[in-house]
Amino acid sequence: MARERQLSRRSLLGGAAATAGAAALTAAGPASAAGAHRQADVAVVGAGLAGLTAARDLVAAGKSVVVLEARDRVGGRVLGLNLAGGGVTEGGGEFIGPTQDRIRALADSLGVQTFTTYNTGNNLLYKDGRRTPYATDGILGSVPPIDAAGLANAAIVQAKLDDLAKQIPVDAPWTAAKADEWDRQTFETWLRANAVIPSAKFLFDVACTSIFSAEPRELSFLFVLFYIAAAGNSANPGTLERLTETAGGAQELRFVGGSQLVPIKLAATLGDRVVLGAPVRTIARSGASYVVTADGITVTAGKVVVAVPPPIAARITYDPLLPAARDQLTQRLPMASVGKAIAIYDTPFWRADGLNGQVVSDTGVISSTFDNSPPDASFGALMGFIEADEARKLDAASEAEVRTAVLKDYTTYFGAKAASPTSFVLQRWNNEAYTRGGPVSIAAPGVLTQYGPALREPVGGIHWAGTETSTYWMGFMDGAVRSGERVAKEVLAVL
Amino acid sequence: MARERQLSRRSLLGGAAATAGAAALTAAGPASAAGAHRQADVAVVGAGLAGLTAARDLVAAGKSVVVLEARDRVGGRVLGLNLAGGGVTEGGGEFIGPTQDRIRALADSLGVQTFTTYNTGNNLLYKDGRRTPYATDGILGSVPPIDAAGLANAAIVQAKLDDLAKQIPVDAPWTAAKADEWDRQTFETWLRANAVIPSAKFLFDVACTSIFSAEPRELSFLFVLFYIAAAGNSANPGTLERLTETAGGAQELRFVGGSQLVPIKLAATLGDRVVLGAPVRTIARSGASYVVTADGITVTAGKVVVAVPPPIAARITYDPLLPAARDQLTQRLPMASVGKAIAIYDTPFWRADGLNGQVVSDTGVISSTFDNSPPDASFGALMGFIEADEARKLDAASEAEVRTAVLKDYTTYFGAKAASPTSFVLQRWNNEAYTRGGPVSIAAPGVLTQYGPALREPVGGIHWAGTETSTYWMGFMDGAVRSGERVAKEVLAVL
Repeated sequence: MARERQLSRRSLLGGAAATAGAAALTAAGPASAAGAHRQADVAVVGAGLAGLTAARDLVAAGKSVVVLEARDRVGGRVLGLNLAGGGVTEGGGEFIGPTQDRIRALADSLGVQTFTTYNTGNNLLYKDGRRTPYATDGILGSVPPIDAAGLANAAIVQAKLDDLAKQIPVDAPWTAAKADEWDRQTFETWLRANAVIPSAKFLFDVACTSIFSAEPRELSFLFVLFYIAAAGNSANPGTLERLTETAGGAQELRFVGGSQLVPIKLAATLGDRVVLGAPVRTIARSGASYVVTADGITVTAGKVVVAVPPPIAARITYDPLLPAARDQLTQRLPMASVGKAIAIYDTPFWRADGLNGQVVSDTGVISSTFDNSPPDASFGALMGFIEADEARKLDAASEAEVRTAVLKDYTTYFGAKAASPTSFVLQRWNNEAYTRGGPVSIAAPGVLTQYGPALREPVGGIHWAGTETSTYWMGFMDGAVRSGERVAKEVLAVL
Repeated sequence: MARERQLSRRSLLGGAAATAGAAALTAAGPASAAGAHRQADVAVVGAGLAGLTAARDLVAAGKSVVVLEARDRVGGRVLGLNLAGGGVTEGGGEFIGPTQDRIRALADSLGVQTFTTYNTGNNLLYKDGRRTPYATDGILGSVPPIDAAGLANAAIVQAKLDDLAKQIPVDAPWTAAKADEWDRQTFETWLRANAVIPSAKFLFDVACTSIFSAEPRELSFLFVLFYIAAAGNSANPGTLERLTETAGGAQELRFVGGSQLVPIKLAATLGDRVVLGAPVRTIARSGASYVVTADGITVTAGKVVVAVPPPIAARITYDPLLPAARDQLTQRLPMASVGKAIAIYDTPFWRADGLNGQVVSDTGVISSTFDNSPPDASFGALMGFIEADEARKLDAASEAEVRTAVLKDYTTYFGAKAASPTSFVLQRWNNEAYTRGGPVSIAAPGVLTQYGPALREPVGGIHWAGTETSTYWMGFMDGAVRSGERVAKEVLAVL
């Protein structure tokens, strides 16, 4: 039992509010045949929002469940980070917005409140060495003030993307009439043929890295259209705007106390069904059951839900082997490349300058930022995404080097005060053991049309969850919750 | 010791000539902390041509080596398959050709002889429902007799590909002046802009699936140009023709007794340094050494050579974590999709019809075939590749269904006699545990320019080998041998 980590109130707090005592829980143990053993109707692999939601629904239906989590915390790609001076900031997924009904309902049920992302004052465009504040409530919405020809071109391209996305069935993008055409080219190729004015191309390049943490060349055009189509719900077709906007879009709201409170409180309702520090190594069929072996604990279960990102799921040993379609799918859904850099200041000083903290930039390591201060603005937090090529350039850099580069950018955008934060927090998802990139898997040309059906197709008693398997809001917290709800229904139907 | 499989003469024979007794060696054991332990200067992961070549050179330099092989045979993607009626046929890599100097030298050193791939008589073009034999020694070489406009277009495209490939430094394709341009589009996008005559496009589509077992939409154009550039040696720049041709190309020669004789004889020289049935699960640093843990055996070594395909290397647990560049690279080099179907007949009856057994087809599950009969033609063997989309369509089909589909194609191409083979051998690499596809990793747009340097960059004492790491003949047996020679030098320089 020494290696099995029961979920205590302390370990529940995980990254969001870990105490010194909780640190003792963080050393993962090696595989041990002498570990604990449990029996359950369902074993869930991964205590992110998907796995925990699935577990909640299965438990509500009267099933016994064990959730095996590799890390010594719950939440997966949702992570609160403690600040040296007190308080918490966001290391992972943090925003929610309209049509993200399922994460909203989950948070409501757990008493986690939302607040509006700070969005008062001007955005900043930094381009060609010039810093241009611009209003976000003008007739252009929050489109940066590029040249007129670029704006006209961008409007046409945006309308075209939305139009094409309407032709995508979110539950099976590979069945779209033009799926083959769209899946044989990169988004870059399509943009070059359509966003022909350089300033318009710039806007879509920034939108692409902001949305996917990937460059347009890395993405299948079909995958991009699917992702746009998925940015909605059954009553509201997805649009590009809903992906990119703060007000009225996917960045509209944040969670009071940090988004990780949602998985933490959800895990608390599951009690000792959640086992931390238990990376799953093998899933083996044994008669009508499955034996799921993690470091320090083995679970025998009738069904298994795997709720980790596809490239991480690929690293589990399955016996019998997975079908080729599923295995090769997970070879082809790499994680994008992302980090978050949060500079903490005594106050959100940019607000007094009439700025909302949001930047769109053509240079530096940070090309998009947000005001990540808490609702009471008891301190100021500037959060910037380090994405795609920029993330990769810095993967091997020291934290000090990254800090220097980031603060140089923040100073360029927000002035000299930005150079001296009271603390600096860096979350590098590419370097995280059980994610190895982020925020989400991406698909290159040819993947969805050949392998898409394997995303959710169960393999015997093994079922797949995680935001990558969601039809709506794939890549977001909402998609994770939806996938957990879907997989629970799927399992209950056969249990 | 029970779980450790010493390499006996019997197990050495592996798939090529396994006896009934050898079958007892094939049941892989589960992980056991109570397994054997060995100490060596170098632990090599994978007993394919790369790993075995590295081991040979390290041993020759006086170093102690243990080679851990997951399968109960050596050879990796090189595999002889026993025929029910006696004799052996080729389940994996089998051909060699001009400039493949290193596999040739290795085979020579082991006394494995080559013979010329049967290439007498006409090729067959099957297109638009018509079967057209054509000579391979005409002024067009072995280019199928498509329409004149298509031929002219194809000649221009081929020349262009060769020209562009000359601009690729094979040791660093990502440094080519136009690397960014070439790595932002699929081969499909480039072909559509260049192979504008449908019949020419058809030829390149078939060439693409034959060379890569992948569709043009799956491949970065930069990766394709690199692969062409790599089809040569330092004295002879790579050409597309050298990839596609039989006479004078990569399919020119075969090995007497089957290609697996090379790794089998090479492994024999290493004796009990090669441990079979030992899939490696973790590579952990321990002070100045590494502890390599496989099912049933643990090896402590100063250096580690990982000589398995990139997506398989990704499934090993590394402690400490690999750098992001290396981990994300292995998330982005999926195996292509390939099977081989070999129909065995009493005689190579097509020879009497003036046919060399080579088909280029626009239909069916098999679009390219070879006469795979042994040098003495004591029986006839028709070998067809099942590739890319066609392989994926059949991944979940029964062997009987595949056999029916394949024999229908063979009958279409070679007449009624092809319908009744004396035996039928199917090797489906997508379904193989320690390969999960084949023949080789492929790169989508954006991979080489961002991640290429991580292909060979050692991580601490961990060094990388395998055909995917080769500068010349990447994807071929020759590349595997070259990579083994390179990595041995690399390790000796730091040991």
